[in-house]
Amino acid sequence: MKNKYFSVLPIGGVEEIGSNMTLISTPEEQIVIDCGMLFPYEECFAINYLIPDFSLLDSSKLTSIVITHGHEDHIGGLAHLLMAFPNITVYATNFTLHLIQKKLEEHKINFKYKVYDPDSELTFKGVDICPVHVNHSIPETCGLIIRSKDRKWGALYISDFKVDLYSKHERPIDLKRINEKLSECEQTAFFMDSTNILNDGKTVSEGELLTDLKSLLERDENRIYITLFASNVHRMNTIAKMAVATGRKVVIMGRSLKTYMEAAFETGHAQIPPEDLFLPDQVKGQSGKMLIFLSGCQGDFLSALRRFSYGEDGTFKPGPGDLVIFSSKVIPGNEKKISRIYNKLTEFGAEIITANDQLIHASGHPGKEDLNILLKSFTPNFYFPIHGESYFLKKHYEFIQANYPKVSARLIYNYQEVILGDGTVKIEEHESQEPHLIHGKALEIEKTQVSQRRKMATQGAVFISYHRSMGHIEITTLGLPLIFQDNIEQLKKRLLQQIRSDLISREENYFKDQLKISARQFCNNLLGYKPVTEVHLY
Amino acid sequence: MKNKYFSVLPIGGVEEIGSNMTLISTPEEQIVIDCGMLFPYEECFAINYLIPDFSLLDSSKLTSIVITHGHEDHIGGLAHLLMAFPNITVYATNFTLHLIQKKLEEHKINFKYKVYDPDSELTFKGVDICPVHVNHSIPETCGLIIRSKDRKWGALYISDFKVDLYSKHERPIDLKRINEKLSECEQTAFFMDSTNILNDGKTVSEGELLTDLKSLLERDENRIYITLFASNVHRMNTIAKMAVATGRKVVIMGRSLKTYMEAAFETGHAQIPPEDLFLPDQVKGQSGKMLIFLSGCQGDFLSALRRFSYGEDGTFKPGPGDLVIFSSKVIPGNEKKISRIYNKLTEFGAEIITANDQLIHASGHPGKEDLNILLKSFTPNFYFPIHGESYFLKKHYEFIQANYPKVSARLIYNYQEVILGDGTVKIEEHESQEPHLIHGKALEIEKTQVSQRRKMATQGAVFISYHRSMGHIEITTLGLPLIFQDNIEQLKKRLLQQIRSDLISREENYFKDQLKISARQFCNNLLGYKPVTEVHLY
Repeated sequence: MKNKYFSVLPIGGVEEIGSNMTLISTPEEQIVIDCGMLFPYEECFAINYLIPDFSLLDSSKLTSIVITHGHEDHIGGLAHLLMAFPNITVYATNFTLHLIQKKLEEHKINFKYKVYDPDSELTFKGVDICPVHVNHSIPETCGLIIRSKDRKWGALYISDFKVDLYSKHERPIDLKRINEKLSECEQTAFFMDSTNILNDGKTVSEGELLTDLKSLLERDENRIYITLFASNVHRMNTIAKMAVATGRKVVIMGRSLKTYMEAAFETGHAQIPPEDLFLPDQVKGQSGKMLIFLSGCQGDFLSALRRFSYGEDGTFKPGPGDLVIFSSKVIPGNEKKISRIYNKLTEFGAEIITANDQLIHASGHPGKEDLNILLKSFTPNFYFPIHGESYFLKKHYEFIQANYPKVSARLIYNYQEVILGDGTVKIEEHESQEPHLIHGKALEIEKTQVSQRRKMATQGAVFISYHRSMGHIEITTLGLPLIFQDNIEQLKKRLLQQIRSDLISREENYFKDQLKISARQFCNNLLGYKPVTEVHLY
Repeated sequence: MKNKYFSVLPIGGVEEIGSNMTLISTPEEQIVIDCGMLFPYEECFAINYLIPDFSLLDSSKLTSIVITHGHEDHIGGLAHLLMAFPNITVYATNFTLHLIQKKLEEHKINFKYKVYDPDSELTFKGVDICPVHVNHSIPETCGLIIRSKDRKWGALYISDFKVDLYSKHERPIDLKRINEKLSECEQTAFFMDSTNILNDGKTVSEGELLTDLKSLLERDENRIYITLFASNVHRMNTIAKMAVATGRKVVIMGRSLKTYMEAAFETGHAQIPPEDLFLPDQVKGQSGKMLIFLSGCQGDFLSALRRFSYGEDGTFKPGPGDLVIFSSKVIPGNEKKISRIYNKLTEFGAEIITANDQLIHASGHPGKEDLNILLKSFTPNFYFPIHGESYFLKKHYEFIQANYPKVSARLIYNYQEVILGDGTVKIEEHESQEPHLIHGKALEIEKTQVSQRRKMATQGAVFISYHRSMGHIEITTLGLPLIFQDNIEQLKKRLLQQIRSDLISREENYFKDQLKISARQFCNNLLGYKPVTEVHLY
């Protein structure tokens, strides 16, 4: 560890989107940045989420976790981290802390915390960390400037940001502070957001959405519905204020919107008087002009948007003369869910406006021009793309290489530790660990078990029990075509025959295995696949 | 049926993409257009495909099916139709017929067929049908002009097309024939493709791809891989010829590419000498410049593209210095599968070029400008958007309403029969039937059974057997977290206790139900969900 000032080791969030967690190490201390959850690829049946592996964390050294902002891919794994390391301190801004507290209350977890301010400085044993205000799509997002005590090294770590020069709600990213803090360091490195790197231009400002949103809210429809990412409190404020100004009652429908609005009220981010906001029950049966916020812009199964769109909500039903606004984008993987919602709404006669029709959504991540603004303001010695899938990291890396030849860009993946040493960087590879699958009551479920679920889902299941002395066999099938029921008697006959001719005196495990093999073969002949089969023997 | 000349009734393909089937009825006869398969929404576990319901077809009247082109969403359900109606005649062009024959050989189905020419006329009892050459993304695609015998009505039915003025492989859509045939009719109606209606402009021509494809094939990389929709024989010809011209060996990898190329050779559509095409085994171990076609551009699990990208192919492995070209688009729903492939290739060091980077893919469906060209050439009295999800149909309908006020546009869904009667149209609604789920050996599987699979996939399964006289209980779990194994003894104890205290003398069904309820409750306390549970009792 000689000559090692500090190191930056992504454990999650590089290579894939979500489960962001990065380990900052100095010889005496470990500090974690964020602990997020990853939403699973579709083949993990009903797995609720994945969290990063904690095995590189050392309970004798880990003192703190610094949270950059309150999105689930940055705080969703925190409950699990705190169960494993209950004595660490959570650093978060006020709004983010309120979100964390709401989350951890569900898990009944107490924890130590310190609220930080974007202009403060956090002091640790081997490094100092200056948060820095950045723009994103949730209030109080920070980048982190990590500096060695001797200021030989300074690293700017921003997993999520954009440069928003025209927001009505917050000042632009604090480029001045970045410049000041990093200028005091001999060597500098950037760790930078890759999410929106395929956008060659500048990410749209929240302020640029006002014109189109306003013209939509001024339309004549009695009922205007709008869905958006629930954490975008700034945009909710904008829309709610405009709706009130045009004489509409504002209704909040859906749990996640309620949660974020509560946190906004508790921390001074809400810009609408609470008496101007209504819950669906409070306006049930009322006519008159309304704007109804719907949570669930990704079409999630239990969300308000989906319930409404399918005509399954008790208070609001879509119909001709309704306008439904999608002030959001489709996260890859949700295309089909969302297009079904478009179809349902259309079939009910509602009109749909999406971000393809008008300028009503802005990303929270940097396009190439956002990165150019940052790099023009301060150019580091080293540069590491983070927060993105491998393909995006590579595109980001190529962009830096092509346009900033003096910057030394490197492509790193999870479990590659960037050691900021004497005047240069060294990359040390650690054995990578898979994220953990969490299901139901925050319990881990193993991959083997998920694969068993997959088999039952694709091939059904057969339960067989046989009583040797009675000579009786019972068979239950689950998830097989009904036509198979007609063949169960035949399967029984086949198995009983086999028992009489071959198995009757055999040892229990052999007996069971042979029954299983025969039953699966019988199904395969009939169906073209072999169900999961279990045998009990008496 | 008085005054009814003929009717057009979509059974599948309107409201959703896929399972295209439309019924043409006259008083004495039924004719079906196409019989396609639909690929299921993700929640249907491992269901291979869906086919339309046949209950509106009348075996005493149904004489024929006319196939417009050889895509799976137009021929994929044909085997099932022919099993139900073995005596009907299949009308298809030569190339399409070859594809159908290859498909039906697998099912060992014999059938009657007639090969038609795009310039021929098919004569039925109550209508005449003139095929008409259109451009699409597979050779020999036709629209159909359906005319009543007295020429009071003429309908142009084109489910899939584009206007391609610059193709090197085929003439443009035959607007002259459409004009000629429809001009002879008193009243006219269009039934028209909605797939690409969100494109305000003109769909790109296959010819416009040549420049970028050529420049990519002239690059220095030793190995260039390219994936595309296997049915796009014209584009394969183009690419293969350019590759040979630049001194590359052309390799075909993947079953579907082989199938389409075979049909192309059999019907004169292949433009490369067969000796210039190689299979992977024939070039194994060879160095030298190659162009390797990979099937599976949608990232399907068993496809050549996926196997290669994951490093699992025996002959070809991705690496630095390889170029992988995606001359295709992402079909909604496949985004995650494909982005994982991008990531895997990137991690192996290969370079990726997609249609986002260069002009290397063209849709086979009409943008608004394509529709304008068609409508400028002939303007019908009535207009019905088909072939698209509800949201797309509505957009299409609004486009016609806004731009062609003299055309009477109507929005129809599946099971709405358009009756072309005396000088006007009437729409008659039929009770709609769900498509059927087909799985394994072309067998239908019921929705209830799929829902049982879903339960096992999301909640696991428990199999319990109890022997009353022995007092012995056995429990097997499937797909539950391993931590649950530690609790099985406790569950056994709990159930045995309940049996002794409450169930011992009870009737069999009550006994079983109570055991089931207790076991599920026990799991719920521990896991937060209730597995599918089955009990056998001796």
